[in-house]
Amino acid sequence: MTSLMRAEIGEQPDALRRTIDALLPRTADLAALAGETRQVLFIARGSSDNAAVYGRYLVESHTGRLATLAAPSIATTYKRRLDLSGVLAVAISQSGKTEEIVETLDWARDCGARTVAVTNGAGSPLAEAAEVALITLAGDEIAVPATKTYTTQLAALAVLGLGLGAEAAEDDLRRVPDEVARMIELTEASPALEEIVEALAKVPGTVVSGRGIAFGTALELALKIKEACYLHAMGLSYADLLHGPIAVVDEQTPALLVAADSGPTLAGTVALARRVESAGARAFGVGGGADLAAACSATLPGPALPEWTAPLGLIVPGQLLVENLARRLGIDPDVPRGLNKVTQTD
Amino acid sequence: MTSLMRAEIGEQPDALRRTIDALLPRTADLAALAGETRQVLFIARGSSDNAAVYGRYLVESHTGRLATLAAPSIATTYKRRLDLSGVLAVAISQSGKTEEIVETLDWARDCGARTVAVTNGAGSPLAEAAEVALITLAGDEIAVPATKTYTTQLAALAVLGLGLGAEAAEDDLRRVPDEVARMIELTEASPALEEIVEALAKVPGTVVSGRGIAFGTALELALKIKEACYLHAMGLSYADLLHGPIAVVDEQTPALLVAADSGPTLAGTVALARRVESAGARAFGVGGGADLAAACSATLPGPALPEWTAPLGLIVPGQLLVENLARRLGIDPDVPRGLNKVTQTD
Repeated sequence: MTSLMRAEIGEQPDALRRTIDALLPRTADLAALAGETRQVLFIARGSSDNAAVYGRYLVESHTGRLATLAAPSIATTYKRRLDLSGVLAVAISQSGKTEEIVETLDWARDCGARTVAVTNGAGSPLAEAAEVALITLAGDEIAVPATKTYTTQLAALAVLGLGLGAEAAEDDLRRVPDEVARMIELTEASPALEEIVEALAKVPGTVVSGRGIAFGTALELALKIKEACYLHAMGLSYADLLHGPIAVVDEQTPALLVAADSGPTLAGTVALARRVESAGARAFGVGGGADLAAACSATLPGPALPEWTAPLGLIVPGQLLVENLARRLGIDPDVPRGLNKVTQTD
Repeated sequence: MTSLMRAEIGEQPDALRRTIDALLPRTADLAALAGETRQVLFIARGSSDNAAVYGRYLVESHTGRLATLAAPSIATTYKRRLDLSGVLAVAISQSGKTEEIVETLDWARDCGARTVAVTNGAGSPLAEAAEVALITLAGDEIAVPATKTYTTQLAALAVLGLGLGAEAAEDDLRRVPDEVARMIELTEASPALEEIVEALAKVPGTVVSGRGIAFGTALELALKIKEACYLHAMGLSYADLLHGPIAVVDEQTPALLVAADSGPTLAGTVALARRVESAGARAFGVGGGADLAAACSATLPGPALPEWTAPLGLIVPGQLLVENLARRLGIDPDVPRGLNKVTQTD
């Protein structure tokens, strides 16, 4: 039996190709808008917040601009104005209808920020509220766990990075759709998929870790495991895991470690895998090339992409892991309990 | 049998009184330094990172300055310079010796930021690196879980808020030490303490939630439960909990909800408690006054302090909960596995 979630995972190569083709021509608009600003402030919740974490590391590491995350409650609950002159506010929402996010972007503009929206909702309130709207072309997403809307958000943020002058080749982004198609095949052919599903099916929880540009991928994978598999899953940066909660890693709590095949954070992730295994717990890898695979009990394949676009492919084996684990646990991945497709928070 | 952790919890009134007396005269220095800046960037890890979350909400909600958290790996791993002119960088480290934090503060200064340190380590590398050092006077802390070094960090951040022009009365801070002493008595006399300890001793994990100025308290309580009790504990903001992972709250996963007795986030926390209980899970309150108590299965008392200083008292019943729960589970709270007192990350 297959699921809508699995079908939508398979639609990602086409969704990404459409989105990248549509958005790459917008880099000049983004550059013009950003020219009047010095820093980026992301506004998002849930999966979109994890996309924003990718965006903030990408912008900081590749463009030299400060990029941080907003606290929406300052706008919506405290109703406090801040001085946001010189700020490029980038709001991310799949539907473009989450009132909290629309209200916070409106607030940012009133506080002096220039505004960008990243949304799959053409004509949505969020798209209408922004000076530049980057509309992702994921198509309708029916399954509750976001898959193609998430990866197309990452594509839009990669375009944002290029618009802000990232020292990176556009071709690394154009190669993503084919690489995602290859990732799906590779992952489903990998014996590690069933091995990791069986291991996670027997434990109450897991820790998911990644660093820098891959950190958002770890947070997103942890969120999906929580949402669709009801496991306790903590998304933690490499440093934060070392800084305390490594106490929770044991034979009942394996770690999932996510990394690109290259880049300055890979060595630390490999060292963390060794530390987890030497503590008597299992480390499972996602990506990270031969070095991470050698340090882990089992490893899902990662994309042949440079660090800056790797997250667009790295989440794919994670999505397939979640879809398989949910079904293994008797959960319909398309409609986990307690969730609606458009979430309203205030 | 008592623990060092319990003894250090009891030292907090004196530690806070000393710290507040020593630091309140520094508001003029802070005001002078901050006068050349427009926004705050916190640099921290672990418990100090949770203190920074308090600082960012306090600064934004009470001074109108943008305040966000830095990603240290941009400095230490990516070694990328950002434009930090106009930024007040505030590094927080209990020991003042964590190399990653010292290196990131040095990097921030090199990038154009003005610099503040908050540390219990007089003469430490971090104190030496900053233009203004706010030295907390917690005394030596021997137990691994941070208690008095954490609350004195919050006191230093409250002073920072006043130095940045927070619209708040200094007297709200001066009342904290007596209120913390009262919290310890009230909590240990409360039948809710044993009730919640027994409930948490029987489940694999819990969710800890709070919003706005109380959000950092929720994160810190979750971290302590992970570190010292080995439970799966997720610290989530009110909005993020609604935005997906509420699926994990069930009869095996109660929620701990933290709130001040007043302020704009209280109503939402009460509504969240009702939603958790109506979903068949238990909600336990920490603070939040009569309204939160009425919505929860059991509630620990909160401090009689306004929202802006409430976190200095709100963590105290949480500390006592963690100390009691660890012993109930047969764990020595003073030396949980896998942790050292001074953590080095790179």
